[in-house]
Amino acid sequence: MKFTVGQIAQVVGGAVEGDAEATVSSLAKIEEAGPGALAFLANAKYEPFLYTTRATAVIVSPEQPLRQAVAASLIRVADPYSAFSKLLEFYAQATRVGKRGVEQPSYLGEGSTIGAGHYRGAFSYVGEGCVIGENVLIFPHAFIGDRVRIGDNSIIHAGAKIYADTIIGQRCVVKAGAVVGTDGFGFAPQPDGSYKAIPQIGNVVLEDDVSIGANATVDCATMGSTVVRQGAKIDNLVQLAHNVEVGRHTVIAAQTGLAGSAKIGAFCVLAGQVGVSGHVTMPNKTTVTAQSGVGKSFKQEGLFLQGSTAFDFKQNQRAQVVFRRLPELEQRVAALEKSSPAPDKP
Amino acid sequence: MKFTVGQIAQVVGGAVEGDAEATVSSLAKIEEAGPGALAFLANAKYEPFLYTTRATAVIVSPEQPLRQAVAASLIRVADPYSAFSKLLEFYAQATRVGKRGVEQPSYLGEGSTIGAGHYRGAFSYVGEGCVIGENVLIFPHAFIGDRVRIGDNSIIHAGAKIYADTIIGQRCVVKAGAVVGTDGFGFAPQPDGSYKAIPQIGNVVLEDDVSIGANATVDCATMGSTVVRQGAKIDNLVQLAHNVEVGRHTVIAAQTGLAGSAKIGAFCVLAGQVGVSGHVTMPNKTTVTAQSGVGKSFKQEGLFLQGSTAFDFKQNQRAQVVFRRLPELEQRVAALEKSSPAPDKP
Amino acid sequence: MKFTVGQIAQVVGGAVEGDAEATVSSLAKIEEAGPGALAFLANAKYEPFLYTTRATAVIVSPEQPLRQAVAASLIRVADPYSAFSKLLEFYAQATRVGKRGVEQPSYLGEGSTIGAGHYRGAFSYVGEGCVIGENVLIFPHAFIGDRVRIGDNSIIHAGAKIYADTIIGQRCVVKAGAVVGTDGFGFAPQPDGSYKAIPQIGNVVLEDDVSIGANATVDCATMGSTVVRQGAKIDNLVQLAHNVEVGRHTVIAAQTGLAGSAKIGAFCVLAGQVGVSGHVTMPNKTTVTAQSGVGKSFKQEGLFLQGSTAFDFKQNQRAQVVFRRLPELEQRVAALEKSSPAPDKP
Repeated sequence: MKFTVGQIAQVVGGAVEGDAEATVSSLAKIEEAGPGALAFLANAKYEPFLYTTRATAVIVSPEQPLRQAVAASLIRVADPYSAFSKLLEFYAQATRVGKRGVEQPSYLGEGSTIGAGHYRGAFSYVGEGCVIGENVLIFPHAFIGDRVRIGDNSIIHAGAKIYADTIIGQRCVVKAGAVVGTDGFGFAPQPDGSYKAIPQIGNVVLEDDVSIGANATVDCATMGSTVVRQGAKIDNLVQLAHNVEVGRHTVIAAQTGLAGSAKIGAFCVLAGQVGVSGHVTMPNKTTVTAQSGVGKSFKQEGLFLQGSTAFDFKQNQRAQVVFRRLPELEQRVAALEKSSPAPDKP
Repeated sequence: MKFTVGQIAQVVGGAVEGDAEATVSSLAKIEEAGPGALAFLANAKYEPFLYTTRATAVIVSPEQPLRQAVAASLIRVADPYSAFSKLLEFYAQATRVGKRGVEQPSYLGEGSTIGAGHYRGAFSYVGEGCVIGENVLIFPHAFIGDRVRIGDNSIIHAGAKIYADTIIGQRCVVKAGAVVGTDGFGFAPQPDGSYKAIPQIGNVVLEDDVSIGANATVDCATMGSTVVRQGAKIDNLVQLAHNVEVGRHTVIAAQTGLAGSAKIGAFCVLAGQVGVSGHVTMPNKTTVTAQSGVGKSFKQEGLFLQGSTAFDFKQNQRAQVVFRRLPELEQRVAALEKSSPAPDKP
Repeated sequence: MKFTVGQIAQVVGGAVEGDAEATVSSLAKIEEAGPGALAFLANAKYEPFLYTTRATAVIVSPEQPLRQAVAASLIRVADPYSAFSKLLEFYAQATRVGKRGVEQPSYLGEGSTIGAGHYRGAFSYVGEGCVIGENVLIFPHAFIGDRVRIGDNSIIHAGAKIYADTIIGQRCVVKAGAVVGTDGFGFAPQPDGSYKAIPQIGNVVLEDDVSIGANATVDCATMGSTVVRQGAKIDNLVQLAHNVEVGRHTVIAAQTGLAGSAKIGAFCVLAGQVGVSGHVTMPNKTTVTAQSGVGKSFKQEGLFLQGSTAFDFKQNQRAQVVFRRLPELEQRVAALEKSSPAPDKP
């Protein structure tokens, strides 16, 4: 994809200063841009880069003064950040998610329907009785089991596996290699110490605007549904066990794990590598720092938790500081004991 | 799948009270059931739900008294829980793992044999010289390398990858996206600080009744075998490194990792996000709590470990409690020092 | 694969003592070897196994004395370890990575080129405009997006997903199920508490000799590149977020996660389950022990860090020791307070 600076200016409704025939083929930050790149300047702090950037063109505001010579062509437009954001989306669309049509071989099971404007990559598999909306992209090697429903404008990336009876809303993204709806880890202990698998017949429901990260795993419910509510964003390699519920617009960073039946509220933020025990309830707007372990339910909204097991962040921070000088603290106690007048030391 | 209440009653050998023509199409817990669902009541604690449930039908015992009006049809049977369990298995069989036959295109390498009653999904790959037993289900996108052996009644889920020379027993389940038998992380440091890969030529052995979770990884041995013994259950996103051994009927929860040559005994329970260092030996019946790190070998059976690094659970719990008030403890020491008569404070 | 002891001796340039017609079909450690296996003895410590091994043949040095009867055939060669290493590589080549040619069905997009000596497994997918070098192995179910470049002698294992615009060097290995180049976890918070995805248009660059583990995830950069430098080895289930940089010959063990824009130096070692916060800079030759969390940047090279959050290893070890006896320490302070003469205790 190559465009002239003049063409870009037309798209964003801007005016060119400099070479309108220069061509750009990528988008970059002004401080990192090289030849052929288009950058933008919206924050005055970055102005010095305007005079040193190797970008071929830079989008700037109409008022941007030029205090030194500028090598790049300029495109002047009222809101440089918004103009650049539009170009970013256009670029992503053109290079990453603009696929349409059906590549062969691909598999479409009996009784399954799929709306207009879709993409089904080669080696993608759609089982029987599925109902798939419009403009849905199904990348190569994606597996969609029987009776799955997927809403409009959702994207199922390469090699994602969506098991039978899963329900996926609109504008959802399931990234490459994610597994949604496989059997949970449910085993009944037997008298001899062995385990017997408990049939898992529930499903997974992803509401609208949910994102599931690459190689993440979301188990189906034993009965009923494992639910990820509207707008929740789940990062790579996260584990959501059977019957978990994740609240609206909650963000869960990479490698975090929620054990069976944990219920996380809305607008929560769980950082990376956090663990949440089974059946724990977490209220709305809870924040948990990285590597923390939440072992019990909390009731108050807006808590900020840290530690394994987790408690109040500030209290944890203070305890951490003393932890580092524990050897010295112990020596101080020993010194006090030595000088103590008490005859009945422990 | 729709059945009348009368049909269900026949299957479980029960007697109908109420509308035998009502139809049910799902199974649910009595407290969560909606119209069209069949539930059960086995525990007296749940009896109040019998009078409020929206389930279309409920399985109850012959002796169950009715203290209020019940809207649902009832199926009376001697052991409601067992009857319901049978229906669960039947439902799972019918909707999830009842596939048979071969979908095309699928790949079967030269010299490979597969027993009667199997399923090979579209885009499944079986390499050369494999010996696969009866009633084995191989879901779409599963990869089975050369010379792999799989016992009767095992299930290889969508997109699971079984590398060359792996041996899988009977009634094993390898869930979606799991990788079994790929090269371990073996590198020889070179004089210049770089690393050279050490050829990994061993394999993985999964004994009978083993379950491997979605997107879990089990590396092959450098030489010899990485072994998961009979009945062990491994959850999603678990890492078992080269030459690891997991004992019989041991359970390992999600996101736990065992480093190279770690040997875990039988009947152990490792909770989620646990780490076990390389070459560590863990005796039978060891329990390790979530997020713990086992950095050394233990000898006594039946230990209950916590912490990173892990030691006795109760001792760790007590230390955790004091950890939270470390700042106060330090202040108390400072106060003692201030009032101490000793002239030779440290 | 079966060879006679005599054939092996010819390959490694050795002399046979004993039965040259005995056949071997596997390689094993001398202490674990069974019938049909070939082992080696290079370290005097292992000599006792020479007299008890069940191996069919053992490679030994010309000077190796025989103090007892030896049942195995011997192959005498100047450097037994090197000879055995060559056989290991030969065996791995023959059994694991010796595939060549194209299996059908496989998909090769328009305008993509691939060099001589390659393997493309059944159901492998190569998008449009890719440039793939010589002797590249692409296993079944591998997904290679548009415009990807892959250098000579690299291996893309089963079900690995390489997203659009990724650049992979020579002699790289991407293991089964790894996801390289998918969108990062970038969301802009909206005034109503919801999140909007930020288009991710950067890519991933893997320099020469890089290894990416099974089911690991490497996100593309928001803009620019996520970079793994020459010779770095990344283990299974590791997460490298958008815009991360991993230095040359750095080793990252399983289940470790690096948050967005973290920059790790060269010759570092990160053990398993480590977490590194976003934007953290880690200098060359830093070592981080398992389950540690690096929450801030460090400047000095060669540090050895432990803990969550991480600080100096030795200091952490000493603090850990006192942590275990915190309850006793608190009791000692209480005893001192009881016997303290000060009237103004806190």
